Amino acid sequence: MERIKAIVAYDGTNFAGYQSQPGMRTVQSEIDKALVKIHKDKSIYSVASGRTDSGVHATGQVIHFDTPLTLEVDRWRMALNVLLPKDIRIVDVAYVDENFHARYSATGKTYTFKWSYAEVHSPFERNYSVHLGKWRPDVEKMQEATQYFIGKHDFTSFCSSKTATSNRIRTVRELSLNEQNNELIMTIEGDGFLYNMVRTIAGMLLAVGKGWHKPEDVKEILALKDRKAASKTAPAHGLYLENVTYDSVVEGR
Amino acid sequence: MERIKAIVAYDGTNFAGYQSQPGMRTVQSEIDKALVKIHKDKSIYSVASGRTDSGVHATGQVIHFDTPLTLEVDRWRMALNVLLPKDIRIVDVAYVDENFHARYSATGKTYTFKWSYAEVHSPFERNYSVHLGKWRPDVEKMQEATQYFIGKHDFTSFCSSKTATSNRIRTVRELSLNEQNNELIMTIEGDGFLYNMVRTIAGMLLAVGKGWHKPEDVKEILALKDRKAASKTAPAHGLYLENVTYDSVVEGR
Repeated sequence: MERIKAIVAYDGTNFAGYQSQPGMRTVQSEIDKALVKIHKDKSIYSVASGRTDSGVHATGQVIHFDTPLTLEVDRWRMALNVLLPKDIRIVDVAYVDENFHARYSATGKTYTFKWSYAEVHSPFERNYSVHLGKWRPDVEKMQEATQYFIGKHDFTSFCSSKTATSNRIRTVRELSLNEQNNELIMTIEGDGFLYNMVRTIAGMLLAVGKGWHKPEDVKEILALKDRKAASKTAPAHGLYLENVTYDSVVEGR
Repeated sequence: MERIKAIVAYDGTNFAGYQSQPGMRTVQSEIDKALVKIHKDKSIYSVASGRTDSGVHATGQVIHFDTPLTLEVDRWRMALNVLLPKDIRIVDVAYVDENFHARYSATGKTYTFKWSYAEVHSPFERNYSVHLGKWRPDVEKMQEATQYFIGKHDFTSFCSSKTATSNRIRTVRELSLNEQNNELIMTIEGDGFLYNMVRTIAGMLLAVGKGWHKPEDVKEILALKDRKAASKTAPAHGLYLENVTYDSVVEGR
């Protein structure tokens, strides 16, 4: 058996999230269906770096799976893309060491979140950014608030109250905001993210931009360790999983 | 009664074309439904510059309708956008002279057609450009072929065989090809277009780019006045109605 790592992009609009669920169209179930076809009805299960919610997009999700087949990497990519629906694309394929694990070997993840200032939200962007209308938040204040998220913190206030994980300590290594072409884009990089953490941080930053909170409120809210202290979770369709990083992936073959 | 002109953008993906059809989701029926709501159940019908097929997009479709209401133009735009689904957006509204007619007053139209060279077609572009794979057509040959379309011709060979119109003479004033960011974009401007004419021209240009036809074949095929002589119609989802022009629109109010 050989282990394969693949980079996957998907438009989350028409999926009930990443993870397989009975009777639902999910990214994982579509990938696993394609793998079963390639392996002539033998079940092969893929493992992802983590799940994403319904409506959330990915340009750089990472999966791994084990296979007895020995196709060239370009053939793997093409064979999967022929079988997959067009809202999922395999961007890259590599053979990796058997110790590589898409989830457990991950050392970091980057997400982006997009808001649009366009006076009229383009119908072509409706599922790909959150419309703020022509009203512009105070981005300087939002920038100021980012510093309080950076570093190692207990993010209990900034994850879903349904979060199962008991260790809520995560390190945010980078958090930035950029305005370009009528869009405001938040980029966040860290060692890992709790359930709804990126969308809750995005919602909090926007609340600061709207003047509902002061930048320094973030510090207090983190200390409270209470989800109810923070602002609303930002909508799923503005969020993109951009990249997953690994230490020295050993590529095989 | 006042006459209103509106510019409409739509993502054609989830519509059975522009024109109302019983039991189908169309752009026109959604617009007319919104108009009925604004007019408290009084039927108001909109007239467009022309229909577009299922899957075809628009950034600058033009409609007109008559109304007894006298809202400000920004209020009109906002009221319609609140009622319309997000894949249709009213971009601009103006009061116009009663002689203005979205279809009969039009003096020209601009369409674009997009192909993608990306090795892997982005899942976010799947409905918005036609994927050619990493293979690049001979764009110089395609450029050469464009000259034969420009000018006043009988376009019987380059429209659907189902075209009802008997006068197939049209003037193409501009036809150009531009490559940018892994995309090839055809732009065509003329006094009017027959059913499937832009997509048939796009299909022919691509056939020239693939070497299946010589550029000068276009001249012969035009002369044959036979749809079967030309190449396949290009897919709907690469096509955009960009703009409709009018002579000196008299804006009222």
